Amino acid sequence: MRIYKKAILPRGFKAFGLSCGIKKSGKPDLALFYSCYPAKAAGLFTTNKIQAAPVLLCRKFLSKKGCFRAIIANSGNANCFTGKKGIEDSLNTAVALADSLGIKKEGVLVSSTGIIARRLPVLRIKSAIPGLIKGLSESKIKEAARAIMTTDTFPKVISARVNLGGRVVTICAVAKGAGMISPNMATLLAFIFTDADLPKSLLEKALREAVAKSFNCITVDGCMSTNDSVIILANGAVKSAAGLKAKEFALFCKALNRVSLELAKLLVRDAEGASKFIEINVSGAKNFTQAKAAALAIANSNLFKTAIYGMNPNFGRIAAAVGSSGADLCQDSLKVRVSPLKKKDIQVRVSLGRGRAQAKIYTCDLTPEYIKVNAEYN
Amino acid sequence: MRIYKKAILPRGFKAFGLSCGIKKSGKPDLALFYSCYPAKAAGLFTTNKIQAAPVLLCRKFLSKKGCFRAIIANSGNANCFTGKKGIEDSLNTAVALADSLGIKKEGVLVSSTGIIARRLPVLRIKSAIPGLIKGLSESKIKEAARAIMTTDTFPKVISARVNLGGRVVTICAVAKGAGMISPNMATLLAFIFTDADLPKSLLEKALREAVAKSFNCITVDGCMSTNDSVIILANGAVKSAAGLKAKEFALFCKALNRVSLELAKLLVRDAEGASKFIEINVSGAKNFTQAKAAALAIANSNLFKTAIYGMNPNFGRIAAAVGSSGADLCQDSLKVRVSPLKKKDIQVRVSLGRGRAQAKIYTCDLTPEYIKVNAEYN
Repeated sequence: MRIYKKAILPRGFKAFGLSCGIKKSGKPDLALFYSCYPAKAAGLFTTNKIQAAPVLLCRKFLSKKGCFRAIIANSGNANCFTGKKGIEDSLNTAVALADSLGIKKEGVLVSSTGIIARRLPVLRIKSAIPGLIKGLSESKIKEAARAIMTTDTFPKVISARVNLGGRVVTICAVAKGAGMISPNMATLLAFIFTDADLPKSLLEKALREAVAKSFNCITVDGCMSTNDSVIILANGAVKSAAGLKAKEFALFCKALNRVSLELAKLLVRDAEGASKFIEINVSGAKNFTQAKAAALAIANSNLFKTAIYGMNPNFGRIAAAVGSSGADLCQDSLKVRVSPLKKKDIQVRVSLGRGRAQAKIYTCDLTPEYIKVNAEYN
Repeated sequence: MRIYKKAILPRGFKAFGLSCGIKKSGKPDLALFYSCYPAKAAGLFTTNKIQAAPVLLCRKFLSKKGCFRAIIANSGNANCFTGKKGIEDSLNTAVALADSLGIKKEGVLVSSTGIIARRLPVLRIKSAIPGLIKGLSESKIKEAARAIMTTDTFPKVISARVNLGGRVVTICAVAKGAGMISPNMATLLAFIFTDADLPKSLLEKALREAVAKSFNCITVDGCMSTNDSVIILANGAVKSAAGLKAKEFALFCKALNRVSLELAKLLVRDAEGASKFIEINVSGAKNFTQAKAAALAIANSNLFKTAIYGMNPNFGRIAAAVGSSGADLCQDSLKVRVSPLKKKDIQVRVSLGRGRAQAKIYTCDLTPEYIKVNAEYN
């Protein structure tokens, strides 16, 4: 298996992105990902009880047996908290794209990110669809990745190639992140494409596992989004003659896990206003759930995050955060270690002294720039 | 009942505060509250699993039947995460004060706030005790309130007078707050004094009720402290001839609730870096727990707090926070209202559309100043 920090689009996929006028800035805000062959799909979505219209629509389409051909995603508007009109807007987007591509609307997945509680300008999207389709190319996925960015400062693409029984399959994933990032689930948009040939059930299994170990292990601000979506399309362009064997599936999962984790880390590196990349490793926990809860409590503590920003070795705040997490711990044998604070990459190691389970969470510091970005964002 | 935003010390109480050299700045850092008569006491403490030494000691002393005479409280050092040495330091503080006052050590409650994981300079405290006792006065509670401040910008004192069956009793309370403020429980130090004559059981009941409706309904940064302590001393200097009747107890509780709530609000007004005072009212909930969870989710959302700081009407963030709280809601009938953002006092009203329960939480915005204060605090 090899991982590439660049775009290598799997066979049979094309993409493009452009500006359709949703963002006042005129920056790219509409992306199209297209599979030349019918693809199987799986998706995981936010567990927020307020769910954006595109999330509701994707859930509906994905719950049926079907072939998927395209994902259309916009930034600048989340189409969330927009009521029934919002659902119509997402559906109309899918219908318009499906008509232009000559496919069924149920083959189109719609995704949105941006400001909440504002109607989606569907007319602008519709007008841009012909140009979007015309631009589709095997070499334009970076344009698509750029068009789903909100406060991200760079497009995020990771690829992997893995040999499954003599056939090399490719996985390519794009994501946007930056803010409103808290696991449970992945609080971001991520689209993953592969030419591997998998049945839907295995695709779903692989995605669940990958997300649990990547997008659900990062947090920027502890704020769970209403639009989080991770979608994978597998078009089977690289056929496996006798179906995927267990060993090959394990290899595929390993590659998918790596792609997802690298992408998740990129999201943290590009988090709003972040000046530090922090890896928090909690060990000695009774079980994984408690280890993760303790690591997340540290990661989401504003006091911890500001201390790291200030390069201030105020490690009592780590102990206080762990203590508030509910995880069992032994106050007298609790150990806290932090790597030198002047570096950009910080490691925090905590041992709870209660067992053998551990968990790792990735996060960033809290800076005046985060406040500036979010005080002005609209 | 009357509430006073100033100090009116109940009969038989004295206080004083001074600088003993714990704080590098030379600002006051040691306070003594003294009852001339043996007092009954009740206390509520942090639910953090990391508990500071003084908290552990107070719990121990308060668990026994006993008479209490004094609270000695320092700022600048939390004496937390300091192991067995820390417990000895708090105990030695109690012993030194008890010896100087000629009382039993179990009659002294010790309290600390400030930086975590650093040894308490007990020698400095011991050297200062004679001067501290000498300074005790009925008119010096503000000096004591000043000496427990950390990043607070003003001392916080609230008093109440209430007529219980012809006898006027006084309640006077001081507190420090500013940061690491999140309910569950009160994440701060608050000391309440009264000359009312109550049995310990009623005192405990009254305190629990008052804290639930005040200190447990505020949050600054969602960070639960290791040192939170609310302690009440009742010295019975104003005797109730035939004991407190139910109606009189209710009146006392009402006054105590008001004092606690006013003090809790003062803590939020003086929160680290805060530029706005925010009242969040969630109604239409299935039950109180869910209403409070939803209100807290809003109050602790960095995205909400920065939007208020930026006077940015990004109300989708309120919906997103409520949706992440786990509270039952009806997405289509969820209502969000926010008062004009240019004012200093902001009201947020959310209706979940699921029932009749409601809850109110007080919080503040998140500003670059909060980050500055906490990046540099040590």
